[in-house]
Amino acid sequence: MPDVGIVMGSDSDLPVMAEASAILQALGVSAETTIVSAHRTPHRLTEYAANARRRGLKVLVAGAGGAAHLPGMLASHTVLPVVGVPIQTKAFQGLDSLLSIVQMPAGIPVATVAVNGAKNAGLLAARILAASDASLADRLEAYARNLEAEVLEKAARLESLGPEAYLQALSKAVL
Amino acid sequence: MPDVGIVMGSDSDLPVMAEASAILQALGVSAETTIVSAHRTPHRLTEYAANARRRGLKVLVAGAGGAAHLPGMLASHTVLPVVGVPIQTKAFQGLDSLLSIVQMPAGIPVATVAVNGAKNAGLLAARILAASDASLADRLEAYARNLEAEVLEKAARLESLGPEAYLQALSKAVL
Amino acid sequence: MPDVGIVMGSDSDLPVMAEASAILQALGVSAETTIVSAHRTPHRLTEYAANARRRGLKVLVAGAGGAAHLPGMLASHTVLPVVGVPIQTKAFQGLDSLLSIVQMPAGIPVATVAVNGAKNAGLLAARILAASDASLADRLEAYARNLEAEVLEKAARLESLGPEAYLQALSKAVL
Amino acid sequence: MPDVGIVMGSDSDLPVMAEASAILQALGVSAETTIVSAHRTPHRLTEYAANARRRGLKVLVAGAGGAAHLPGMLASHTVLPVVGVPIQTKAFQGLDSLLSIVQMPAGIPVATVAVNGAKNAGLLAARILAASDASLADRLEAYARNLEAEVLEKAARLESLGPEAYLQALSKAVL
Amino acid sequence: MPDVGIVMGSDSDLPVMAEASAILQALGVSAETTIVSAHRTPHRLTEYAANARRRGLKVLVAGAGGAAHLPGMLASHTVLPVVGVPIQTKAFQGLDSLLSIVQMPAGIPVATVAVNGAKNAGLLAARILAASDASLADRLEAYARNLEAEVLEKAARLESLGPEAYLQALSKAVL
Amino acid sequence: MPDVGIVMGSDSDLPVMAEASAILQALGVSAETTIVSAHRTPHRLTEYAANARRRGLKVLVAGAGGAAHLPGMLASHTVLPVVGVPIQTKAFQGLDSLLSIVQMPAGIPVATVAVNGAKNAGLLAARILAASDASLADRLEAYARNLEAEVLEKAARLESLGPEAYLQALSKAVL
Amino acid sequence: MPDVGIVMGSDSDLPVMAEASAILQALGVSAETTIVSAHRTPHRLTEYAANARRRGLKVLVAGAGGAAHLPGMLASHTVLPVVGVPIQTKAFQGLDSLLSIVQMPAGIPVATVAVNGAKNAGLLAARILAASDASLADRLEAYARNLEAEVLEKAARLESLGPEAYLQALSKAVL
Amino acid sequence: MPDVGIVMGSDSDLPVMAEASAILQALGVSAETTIVSAHRTPHRLTEYAANARRRGLKVLVAGAGGAAHLPGMLASHTVLPVVGVPIQTKAFQGLDSLLSIVQMPAGIPVATVAVNGAKNAGLLAARILAASDASLADRLEAYARNLEAEVLEKAARLESLGPEAYLQALSKAVL
Repeated sequence: MPDVGIVMGSDSDLPVMAEASAILQALGVSAETTIVSAHRTPHRLTEYAANARRRGLKVLVAGAGGAAHLPGMLASHTVLPVVGVPIQTKAFQGLDSLLSIVQMPAGIPVATVAVNGAKNAGLLAARILAASDASLADRLEAYARNLEAEVLEKAARLESLGPEAYLQALSKAVL
Repeated sequence: MPDVGIVMGSDSDLPVMAEASAILQALGVSAETTIVSAHRTPHRLTEYAANARRRGLKVLVAGAGGAAHLPGMLASHTVLPVVGVPIQTKAFQGLDSLLSIVQMPAGIPVATVAVNGAKNAGLLAARILAASDASLADRLEAYARNLEAEVLEKAARLESLGPEAYLQALSKAVL
Repeated sequence: MPDVGIVMGSDSDLPVMAEASAILQALGVSAETTIVSAHRTPHRLTEYAANARRRGLKVLVAGAGGAAHLPGMLASHTVLPVVGVPIQTKAFQGLDSLLSIVQMPAGIPVATVAVNGAKNAGLLAARILAASDASLADRLEAYARNLEAEVLEKAARLESLGPEAYLQALSKAVL
Repeated sequence: MPDVGIVMGSDSDLPVMAEASAILQALGVSAETTIVSAHRTPHRLTEYAANARRRGLKVLVAGAGGAAHLPGMLASHTVLPVVGVPIQTKAFQGLDSLLSIVQMPAGIPVATVAVNGAKNAGLLAARILAASDASLADRLEAYARNLEAEVLEKAARLESLGPEAYLQALSKAVL
Repeated sequence: MPDVGIVMGSDSDLPVMAEASAILQALGVSAETTIVSAHRTPHRLTEYAANARRRGLKVLVAGAGGAAHLPGMLASHTVLPVVGVPIQTKAFQGLDSLLSIVQMPAGIPVATVAVNGAKNAGLLAARILAASDASLADRLEAYARNLEAEVLEKAARLESLGPEAYLQALSKAVL
Repeated sequence: MPDVGIVMGSDSDLPVMAEASAILQALGVSAETTIVSAHRTPHRLTEYAANARRRGLKVLVAGAGGAAHLPGMLASHTVLPVVGVPIQTKAFQGLDSLLSIVQMPAGIPVATVAVNGAKNAGLLAARILAASDASLADRLEAYARNLEAEVLEKAARLESLGPEAYLQALSKAVL
Repeated sequence: MPDVGIVMGSDSDLPVMAEASAILQALGVSAETTIVSAHRTPHRLTEYAANARRRGLKVLVAGAGGAAHLPGMLASHTVLPVVGVPIQTKAFQGLDSLLSIVQMPAGIPVATVAVNGAKNAGLLAARILAASDASLADRLEAYARNLEAEVLEKAARLESLGPEAYLQALSKAVL
Repeated sequence: MPDVGIVMGSDSDLPVMAEASAILQALGVSAETTIVSAHRTPHRLTEYAANARRRGLKVLVAGAGGAAHLPGMLASHTVLPVVGVPIQTKAFQGLDSLLSIVQMPAGIPVATVAVNGAKNAGLLAARILAASDASLADRLEAYARNLEAEVLEKAARLESLGPEAYLQALSKAVL
């Protein structure tokens, strides 16, 4: 049984949510990915959440957009920590998704990340698991050191090239 | 069995939602009022919505604030028309409630009214029932004529008194 | 005489509003579609709304953008339920349309759906008619079961393929 | 017949809108004040606007809140310039009123002022009339010089007292 | 000397502001168009506004974006009516422009129109001039009747073709 | 050493943040509470976060308002899960706090809860710890059942009294 | 001649702006305080800004609310650094003031601080002067150390008392 | 040692931030450009800011997007004036960046410019340095006169060509 359950309201959310599974895989955390729609499959939502702890899942990651009820409704059916990812939308760019997910009433929390922040949702799930898994915590510290090293390398290069030459190099890399 | 089911996420919403039951009573429409919390009583939500049509209810009116999932989740469990009332909140004054209710995905509609617009939710429920009840439609037309008459009377008084005297009369009436 | 009158402020709203007529047709509900501009044809608006009940219409669906006065003004001239569709706009992405439609004063309700939510407006009109038409209610329940089945099928496929392969399949389908 | 027609959607708007009539009176411009509700008295709205030019009115000033349709609907029924005053609201502080008034479609303009800006609406009506009334334009220039003189006097006092003493004097004046 | 002075903060605003001069020309109203930047040419702003009445201008139309100070600063230097056009911006889509123009303090009004609403600014200038020019008022009424006729024609065509065929015809017209 | 570290930017945040320590205490979770200001004590921030894991803390809960940098900067110095509480503010009611906390860049997640949602922050910390503490998970399930029971009791009372009598009882209880 | 000129659009802004003069006085920086209204005294604005450098002023601090044109217009007439303070407003809580001040076009910068952030405006003026005044820079470092010490003292007290006792002590201090 | 340190959170901000270095170079002000990430290189941030004054830097310019903590955290570690540039973002177009930068608590100011306003950040840094460098102040005045001359030239051309011909010339220039 995987440790993390990644769910989303629609397969149109997959391009965003796949970043959560990718980072978890890179960190050696087992995860399953599926679709659970709060509005179109409400019974599946109830079952998925109600059985999650029994099935051995330890964290849920849920992405949804617009009137985004999936993360909050999952959190109503389980005591597992639920990480919510507000998906960007056309009319409100994700403000609707964000407020629908983060403004939960007292009693039922959802751990909300940035709009389209699925990568961070995966990392947050890993941090949660690492609270009782020192080896994973060490891998997360290594990940952070890598992030730092990447920035330091780019900083050194920018200082050496100067902004104009760096900018030209950037444009070429894009092409 | 009443025609309209009025539900709210918390009894703190009752001062607003009681306006829905009051206007329905005034129009001679039968209604029941109760509490159904999407997050604290998710099973009750499922049951209430799933049984609503069978129990003979014809319209649901649901008020909720913040990450307001109640109206949308009811609409996921029934094909009855659901009227959603966004309750005003402290941090976002109801913008969170409004977006959480109105921005439903294609397939599951919620008939949303103004922030704290419970009176209009009741009137909308009555209009929905009146689509197949000519007598109720006539009572709604009478209600509209009354609204018009009230405005005309005030307009006549304002034209006769002038703005300053009318304003003074208003202040006294408040005191 | 059709049961639903679908109106819009401008023919530039038709690509959105045609989703309302399409879903009503699919559900076997009769509808007429026309243009009524609150600002450019105010007399037509008055006539259309004032005669709607007499002509046998049972629900109005109205789409408008910006200072979107059409749904609210229709609701001022008839006691039929009016469903308002806020059309997305360039400067405010539909926030102006949404607030202009949903924030009606007490006495005159408009059943507001999501920005560009014309499909849901059609479904809401169907739910309203189904309140007194058991056969239509059954068709709506079948429609909901279809939505559910579609999601379950996709969920099964995603679980079987895994997120990466599903994502690749998605991209190919788009191409 | 007065030159300016000041209308509002409800007598609850009068405390704000009375500032328009007061400044017009101070500038020697004749005005009438009455109530016209777009939603509760739609026929009165049509008549008031359609007859305004014939009755000799030259400018309309209209205040409304929430889904504020009054100024725009007046402007649809007359070619007189219409000044719109967005009234502050509880849930959205007047953002709803502002967008409902200012975001008119091409063809039908409304001259919008600040939220609760009824005094400026009166001044704008006076500027419009002054475009063909040199004496009124001169009175407006005198008004502007007075505003300037008031500020200069306060500035001199603040420079002479210093901020602390001035602040103390201010607080006492309030008490 | 023309009746209307159309100014803008930058020639990048011209694609929008040219709609004001076009509609005024179509209505037979004389206008001049030029650039006045509140921030880059503050002395020119002072001169343009201070001399406007003396030069015989009767209305000013000013477009500006972002921290849009041009319309308000013009209104501070003249008693002519000033119509402000908030230009759409990249970061805030014109919300910054709108609030910078419409939220003027008591004493100095600006007649604000919709974001990018230059056509309506021209029409508003015409309405202002028509308050003392019956012939222009008649031309504005004819313009309104034309708008109405155009909508009625499209409505008739949509009713005759039905939404799908009309939509196809629309798409072809675009191609 | 406690399991949870609760920190806030200023003691003015304590009335809100004390709800986090209270709920953790009620759930039998050990916690420490202190002040760490990202801006006024940046060295303390670095030390607190960098030592947190070594000291045996397992989750951090951080409240901050306005340009709320505390939660994100803590998360930059530790791999422990950090729960962020946006504190309500005067000018933007907490929108500034929320966006400053939730919109973290890829690589460094913060688990954001509602504006002033310190109780939920405490509950989220408990859920995180419960991922590896079955007894705590059971206490959280009992807590959820209690929430449900409270609502059911109130629902029964509202159904029995009806909305008016219940409302009167509510008002008396407040007095 | 003082180093800093503190100006505001109206004496109603003084309760906020006096915090700028107070902190500058505490830091030993000379400042003058006066009223300059962009809209009611536009000539005074031009003179004040155009003469500022010649008079020996080195930094301007300007507070304004609503359509807040004062800081930007000052910056158009001088090359001195101008610090803008958005004053909180009734309808938009200062969002209008903030956007009117911060969204200046390329070429004319305004150094914007938080809504009602006059204390920080004073501190920013001091930092600007300290760029060429090492003694003032040292006083600013001492000020920062004091801020840090205050927080550390409160943190120690909170850790020693615990949140409940500290909260009680806070409440008593307020009473 | 250069006078200005230009830093940014990521090299993806360089296309915007290079405008700051370009304008400083044009004005003859020495600057260095590098990358400092508040979240990925927090130690580098501390060092960069803490050493800035000692290294002889006089002003810092910092660009960041989303939960933009870089400018504020720099300002916490130095008493040099810090100019913050909110970088435009996908979900909130820079509103998140702006509020995260400008809403700093009392004690620690950041001089905020417009979203993507890096050119103005460079100009503001120059104005700050010019407060004690009369020659630079003169160059800034020359720069302002150039801006003015450019506008006057365009204005003359627009007045001579008229809006239509100018617009055509503009379009050709773009092609």
